[in-house]
Amino acid sequence: MLKVIAQDFVRLDALEIVRPFYRELVELTRREPLCLAYDLFVNQKDPGHFIFVEEWPDRAALDAHCATEHFRRLVPLINAHHRQDPTFILMDAMADV
Amino acid sequence: MLKVIAQDFVRLDALEIVRPFYRELVELTRREPLCLAYDLFVNQKDPGHFIFVEEWPDRAALDAHCATEHFRRLVPLINAHHRQDPTFILMDAMADV
Repeated sequence: MLKVIAQDFVRLDALEIVRPFYRELVELTRREPLCLAYDLFVNQKDPGHFIFVEEWPDRAALDAHCATEHFRRLVPLINAHHRQDPTFILMDAMADV
Repeated sequence: MLKVIAQDFVRLDALEIVRPFYRELVELTRREPLCLAYDLFVNQKDPGHFIFVEEWPDRAALDAHCATEHFRRLVPLINAHHRQDPTFILMDAMADV
């Protein structure tokens, strides 16, 4: 099992622009057959700090997600409004370490 | 619902010392009646980077967790081996924003 935290930092003047893209990305990703969890959160102290908490069976499933039509279409539309580079943490469960 | 990501950065020479403290902290926290989720992960690129993904009904439940005997006893034992300060992100679900 692969857990992922992906963090986006969006300009505060672009929140209304990116929210529909995020909603579509979440909806379509959750329909992927290998998606175990794909939840999107917002930092209570920063409305432009979006945090995905994801779960995939393995790295190949994550790579397949990144190759989907919806990912390749929507992520650049979101990234155009970033104020800094996104970050990604790929994690193993502590019990497996 | 309150989602939390708490990140610890432990010195690599102290991993064997802190792991039993983490295991006890996870086991006892999951027994707290208000704990909805309390999962601990390790960054695949950094075995000293520990990431809690937590879920609580509200801020009061998180505060109650931080006041428990096990939290007040175990967290300082872990923190003694940190190589940098921990970070905490308190988050709302995107659907609620």
